Amino acid sequence: MADPRFFAKSGPFTLGELAARCGAKLAREADADKRVSDVAALDQAGPEHISFLDNRKYVDAFAASRAGACLVQDALAARAPAGMALLIALDPYRSYAKVARCFYPPAPPVPGIAAGAIVDPSARLGAGCRVEAGAVIGARAEIGARCLLGANAVIGEAVLLGEDCSVGPGASLGHCILGDRVIILAGARIGQDGFGFAMGAEGHLKVPQLGRVVIHDDVEIGANTTVDRGAGPDTVIGAGCKIDNLVQIGHNVQLGRGCVIVAQVGISGSTRLDDFVAIGGQAGFAGHLRIGAGARIAAQSGVIRDVDPGVSVGGSPAAPVSEWHRQTAAIRRLGRGKGE
Amino acid sequence: MADPRFFAKSGPFTLGELAARCGAKLAREADADKRVSDVAALDQAGPEHISFLDNRKYVDAFAASRAGACLVQDALAARAPAGMALLIALDPYRSYAKVARCFYPPAPPVPGIAAGAIVDPSARLGAGCRVEAGAVIGARAEIGARCLLGANAVIGEAVLLGEDCSVGPGASLGHCILGDRVIILAGARIGQDGFGFAMGAEGHLKVPQLGRVVIHDDVEIGANTTVDRGAGPDTVIGAGCKIDNLVQIGHNVQLGRGCVIVAQVGISGSTRLDDFVAIGGQAGFAGHLRIGAGARIAAQSGVIRDVDPGVSVGGSPAAPVSEWHRQTAAIRRLGRGKGE
Amino acid sequence: MADPRFFAKSGPFTLGELAARCGAKLAREADADKRVSDVAALDQAGPEHISFLDNRKYVDAFAASRAGACLVQDALAARAPAGMALLIALDPYRSYAKVARCFYPPAPPVPGIAAGAIVDPSARLGAGCRVEAGAVIGARAEIGARCLLGANAVIGEAVLLGEDCSVGPGASLGHCILGDRVIILAGARIGQDGFGFAMGAEGHLKVPQLGRVVIHDDVEIGANTTVDRGAGPDTVIGAGCKIDNLVQIGHNVQLGRGCVIVAQVGISGSTRLDDFVAIGGQAGFAGHLRIGAGARIAAQSGVIRDVDPGVSVGGSPAAPVSEWHRQTAAIRRLGRGKGE
Repeated sequence: MADPRFFAKSGPFTLGELAARCGAKLAREADADKRVSDVAALDQAGPEHISFLDNRKYVDAFAASRAGACLVQDALAARAPAGMALLIALDPYRSYAKVARCFYPPAPPVPGIAAGAIVDPSARLGAGCRVEAGAVIGARAEIGARCLLGANAVIGEAVLLGEDCSVGPGASLGHCILGDRVIILAGARIGQDGFGFAMGAEGHLKVPQLGRVVIHDDVEIGANTTVDRGAGPDTVIGAGCKIDNLVQIGHNVQLGRGCVIVAQVGISGSTRLDDFVAIGGQAGFAGHLRIGAGARIAAQSGVIRDVDPGVSVGGSPAAPVSEWHRQTAAIRRLGRGKGE
Repeated sequence: MADPRFFAKSGPFTLGELAARCGAKLAREADADKRVSDVAALDQAGPEHISFLDNRKYVDAFAASRAGACLVQDALAARAPAGMALLIALDPYRSYAKVARCFYPPAPPVPGIAAGAIVDPSARLGAGCRVEAGAVIGARAEIGARCLLGANAVIGEAVLLGEDCSVGPGASLGHCILGDRVIILAGARIGQDGFGFAMGAEGHLKVPQLGRVVIHDDVEIGANTTVDRGAGPDTVIGAGCKIDNLVQIGHNVQLGRGCVIVAQVGISGSTRLDDFVAIGGQAGFAGHLRIGAGARIAAQSGVIRDVDPGVSVGGSPAAPVSEWHRQTAAIRRLGRGKGE
Repeated sequence: MADPRFFAKSGPFTLGELAARCGAKLAREADADKRVSDVAALDQAGPEHISFLDNRKYVDAFAASRAGACLVQDALAARAPAGMALLIALDPYRSYAKVARCFYPPAPPVPGIAAGAIVDPSARLGAGCRVEAGAVIGARAEIGARCLLGANAVIGEAVLLGEDCSVGPGASLGHCILGDRVIILAGARIGQDGFGFAMGAEGHLKVPQLGRVVIHDDVEIGANTTVDRGAGPDTVIGAGCKIDNLVQIGHNVQLGRGCVIVAQVGISGSTRLDDFVAIGGQAGFAGHLRIGAGARIAAQSGVIRDVDPGVSVGGSPAAPVSEWHRQTAAIRRLGRGKGE
């Protein structure tokens, strides 16, 4: 289904192979040798495709689908149409991700330094790296094996990248240290000066920003997102964090492991998020806060106080989610002329 | 009035020529041969300038203006000062746009490939294209006639551009197909991976993003705006959409024709806007919504439900605009100590 | 404390020297010859470090600190631990900024044009400029002395920069005039077309954007921030303004001197801010407003009316801050089931 102009497809694969690679179990062992040639959405799939059902909302589409095979939870398997091979999975979306990666495996970079790339002679590149046209690698930078540095990306002086990292076109990195398998999308800005000034009527005096950005393994940072370096301490992005586009991370911010931050969120300086915090789009955080592990912050929230571990909040200023829902219900009544 | 350091001016033109080119009608035919040499705002114009009155707020400035000529609606013509030549227009701002384009016509690019541009040998460029210094054009890209590719812009592998497109400095395009006369401003990011992960405590697993971005004719996309490619379906921007700076468009989003999206709006994945939806700045949309044709979304709204065609909404969570106004009035009373 | 991989340190300095350079007064003149080798935070400092106490919240850390010396207000000096040398300052944070700049002085650029930079032969560069790899300088641009133009930055045709400016990697400037000591961080976009269209069902017609961006001395503009050029008048950024990352400044906006604008703020076209306005993150402004000198706008505000000089506002729509606090208190009560 993917446009071959842009995507190279592997396969076909037998359902037995796919089940083994995605941690699913075939409902009928007899389907193990059946072959499928691609992934497709339930409503677009044909007999040669494997699809998935993740959301109960789409049960009807599942029941009507012409897909040859489908990833599904055991509890919903009975709704399958006749003739569909079933791969029973605990988390069908996660299994789908693995199946899709079989058909469209992340390609390792084609090693080499393209014409028009500028690599400082004192920089060190690991084996198998690709540096695309116009990319600039500064003095003393050290790049691990198999990194892909996109066209017109800039790797600043002395920056360190681990192995298997990818830096998108036009992104720029400075004063930072990256772990392995870090993905920086196009136009992201990592490690520039934090917003630190001693304010005053005689002029706002710039305060030297003497920290770094430290990004741990398996982080993804979205397009045109900005991560400022620390003022003294480092700005830290924990392992496995996923950050969407156009997010602002201020100086000295620390993110634990596995945080998920949707687009256009802003986190002010020195705020600390513990592990697995999830933040909806356009939410904002004041500085110097502590957000506990597993907290969930609704989209467009304005967080101005610490949030305890595991708590969900919403609204601006943010309140626990049950309070926030009562607030919005009360406001809705006010707008309908009741409750005034 | 425009700084000749940056803008090349044409003209002068007679009012007869200008009236014909902008769809206006001279109030007095005797003015047809009068010449003007430039456009200017009402309060800055002199006898050699043509100005316009679009907003009743500026009627006094119109009555006091020294402009030699002015575009104006018939209903306000009587307020003109003595000696001002009048061009009667149904939509004076639209006519002004056409007149301003007479004096400052969009220059076609100077054909050629600048020193320091890197064009892959397998890329194809139409006649009359200009590739500025540092621009990178990837393998198998196909660029229509008369496109302008700005300095340090990146056109990814296999990307397709129609005719008369313009890509600003430092912008990057991948996995996308553009129609004719598409304008991409500086630093915009088109076609990078959408934000798709199968979340889990054992790590968030990246889901391959197998769609494209399809941008139809006459679209403009603002500086540092991000448009992610689809996860499976395409992300689609309909003909004539105008998108401001720092906007986030998630994967699988579909915009109909003529949508207008002001700066810093965020639209989550799989949301669909029908034709001519207008969105104020910093509004946000949840995913998987349907926004009907002609709907109007106020600035800073948080849209979490479908919006019917033609409906105006505001607030967060967004409500029909009359309800929203009652909500804000009631909240205002609460803040003044009444209504509690 | 700063990582020597990224930062070059000067010193050591005597406390006498530092006191003189930062406008502080030694509590005991006998400490004048004592030497310190670096700055450090109160809780990380040792005898060889100088630290600072700016916020009463950290008095306990001050009392327990092992720092050899500390900048402090007179009123808090009595809380110092034994043996700590004290530098009494009216504004310890401002004095700290000066001390930190002694240890980590902003390095002047190393003059020269790096390999892979593209400078148009008609551009003029002042003495002592550095042009990094991949930077592009357009025809007729004029760059003052000692400017640093970062890797892959783009200086458009005829752009003017004053002296001692710095343009970050991947930033792009067009149709603009900069004063002295202006700092543009990575990926900022200055001078592209404003968002001006004559809307209509037959298509939105682009209105030529005939103004410039004028940036006065000592301005800092954050990473991936966008500043559109004027439609006819100029967009103006007053001297000493500090603008954070991902901010949107629309066409014809005028900022007075010393405004401070935190990340992700959006200011719509033709709005004017007088001197020393301070704006919290993610606030938004409608167009054509006037914000008086010294006004303070809370984070996430939605400003839709003029604000008088010196007034603080918050909320969306924004209200004077005392009203806004009563609003949020009343809403909080609604969410707790009281006041309904």
